[in-house]
Amino acid sequence: MKKVAIVGIGHGKFGVRSDASLRELIFEAVKACLDDAGLSLKEVDSMVTGVAGDEFSFGIQPSAQVHDYIGFHPRANFRVEGACATGSVALRTGWMTIASGLADLVLVAGVEKMTEVPTSMATEIMGRAGDATWEYPFGTTFPGYYAMIANAHMAEHGTTEEQLARVAVKNHYYGSLNPYAQMQKEITLDKAMTSFTVAYPLKLYDCSLITDGAAAILLASEERAKAISKKPVWIAGLGCGTDSMRLGDRKSLTSLQATREAAKTAYKMAGVGPSDIDVATVHDCFTIAEVIAYEDLGFCEKGEGGKLIEAKETYVGGRIPVNVDGGLKSKGHPLGATGVSMAIEISKQLREEAGPRQVKDAEIGLTHNVGGSGQLSLIHIFRRE
Amino acid sequence: MKKVAIVGIGHGKFGVRSDASLRELIFEAVKACLDDAGLSLKEVDSMVTGVAGDEFSFGIQPSAQVHDYIGFHPRANFRVEGACATGSVALRTGWMTIASGLADLVLVAGVEKMTEVPTSMATEIMGRAGDATWEYPFGTTFPGYYAMIANAHMAEHGTTEEQLARVAVKNHYYGSLNPYAQMQKEITLDKAMTSFTVAYPLKLYDCSLITDGAAAILLASEERAKAISKKPVWIAGLGCGTDSMRLGDRKSLTSLQATREAAKTAYKMAGVGPSDIDVATVHDCFTIAEVIAYEDLGFCEKGEGGKLIEAKETYVGGRIPVNVDGGLKSKGHPLGATGVSMAIEISKQLREEAGPRQVKDAEIGLTHNVGGSGQLSLIHIFRRE
Repeated sequence: MKKVAIVGIGHGKFGVRSDASLRELIFEAVKACLDDAGLSLKEVDSMVTGVAGDEFSFGIQPSAQVHDYIGFHPRANFRVEGACATGSVALRTGWMTIASGLADLVLVAGVEKMTEVPTSMATEIMGRAGDATWEYPFGTTFPGYYAMIANAHMAEHGTTEEQLARVAVKNHYYGSLNPYAQMQKEITLDKAMTSFTVAYPLKLYDCSLITDGAAAILLASEERAKAISKKPVWIAGLGCGTDSMRLGDRKSLTSLQATREAAKTAYKMAGVGPSDIDVATVHDCFTIAEVIAYEDLGFCEKGEGGKLIEAKETYVGGRIPVNVDGGLKSKGHPLGATGVSMAIEISKQLREEAGPRQVKDAEIGLTHNVGGSGQLSLIHIFRRE
Repeated sequence: MKKVAIVGIGHGKFGVRSDASLRELIFEAVKACLDDAGLSLKEVDSMVTGVAGDEFSFGIQPSAQVHDYIGFHPRANFRVEGACATGSVALRTGWMTIASGLADLVLVAGVEKMTEVPTSMATEIMGRAGDATWEYPFGTTFPGYYAMIANAHMAEHGTTEEQLARVAVKNHYYGSLNPYAQMQKEITLDKAMTSFTVAYPLKLYDCSLITDGAAAILLASEERAKAISKKPVWIAGLGCGTDSMRLGDRKSLTSLQATREAAKTAYKMAGVGPSDIDVATVHDCFTIAEVIAYEDLGFCEKGEGGKLIEAKETYVGGRIPVNVDGGLKSKGHPLGATGVSMAIEISKQLREEAGPRQVKDAEIGLTHNVGGSGQLSLIHIFRRE
């Protein structure tokens, strides 16, 4: 199997970006990515674009808006989609483009412009990424799905509302240190605990954000990577798993089959296990999702996720630092960009360029990105050497 | 580079399928595909789903609806999209999954349920796959885009309305011989010429259809292909090109840069030229699009496309038989399924299973699939041995 590395990273500012269109957002990220790699767009062979929702961007084939605006044609580009995991699907497809021998230098672009529609409509569009036959039509949107999951986890494992709130406190703390984050402010445990209830037990600060943003990565084949970058970040393992859309069709509410499947594949391919991971970004669309990710990824035993955050083991300096870029919770969650942004944070950590958020001697990193309420999960494992 | 072959094909009935949902349509095609390969779904490693429009299917991540309904989880599946070329993007991604070494047996599923919305809304959704800033908002939909292209071709090359109508006559003739086609009826030249004008010079019979339908292909690695199929169809070349969305930004209206780029790449990879192609399916969303495809693919000189159809050289028995399955024009055009359906017709031809539409001794075939008004084009070349 061919080796593929990240040789360029570019991250736009996440937030309510009324100053920029979808096209302008991605231009910003692509420009930063090429500057980081020290290359011009002319040198890139091929491209993959991740955009989750047609309805945010008002047009099928948003990938064409992107390659048109940045001036990439006549070279190859198309769109991939996996709801909230779209950015990781783009990275996986970019990796396949090189590993299959079709190209040597591939641009992976992820973008979403979610505030173009009212919040209620964004919530509705995302809601339809849940089960659109038996759940969404009866009124469930994402806070509802994850509230059911949280209640089940509390009942089965004794996880507390306070433990969930501690995930928010951690991620807001790290978001305050990330200049690209939507929410650059710390919160107290009391503030999180006393914020209004969205869907019990989830409160305002248990929920991630509606975000505009873009992120871009340049991938290179082994031969090209070493010439381009002094600090290539190698993609060592890839995993992708799926599940039913409807929560009621799943064996368990407190563990995601899609994540367990993706983790098994990715760990095996990379030849490592959970204890080898030095730093991770996981899918914290709601605080309970981060707790469950700890367990499904093997960072702790099943049911022990609440205790892991309570013991601060997922802070920098802890056993396994998680979402030290702020996570979806505080950095923001522009669906198509999120997976790409996760891989950028891991790249910064492995390149030792994460500044005040740096995990010491990080050599192996992992990203975990979930689509919908768990019907898709993608995991990537990265190595410094 | 690893060799990849088509070892199973399954084609659903195209048409107004008020009897079936998106999920049921794809089940029909996948079942037929697995039966053709003589395998069960359990044996398949991975999957790619092509669906063009979220707004037809009322939900982001339609791929999850598909893997859920057919029972494919926990294995990998995600969605790809390239407007009208979505099916070919799925085939390309399926090929990459095997060629990159991630899997040995990959299911490629393409589906669209377009009649779920009123025709006016379908026209609007598709219209937004054109330039959504400077063209569509001022009232242009697809017949308008291609009418401008047709007028330019008539002015530059003397192509006639009658020559365009002859494309429709041919494709309806072959559609009448294809049990999966939406329109199984022949038309006369007079009927085509006297049908009402949609956007001058394009008349009713110059336009393709709004269609529900699904198609599925099973791809295998070289080692697996020979064991599964006595008649594997090898993917010998792949090309993908792009262009601007806005017609006004292009150097020419009468030739598609995206197609020329994709053709150059695919011919080179396969080590063949236009004269080596025995049978082709090309993107005849409008009759003028087939004429331009003849030229851009090198089946005739620039400007000679009208004469090629007039001389019946693209019928079975002619120099280069094109769209002898009825094409988008008569077989129908369910966006996500079209590219997969094209590859199925070429597979049938190379397997000598095309019945009354069989091209004698067909050894090398080509598919050509365009997204939007030409901002994306994918070409695949197939070989019998």
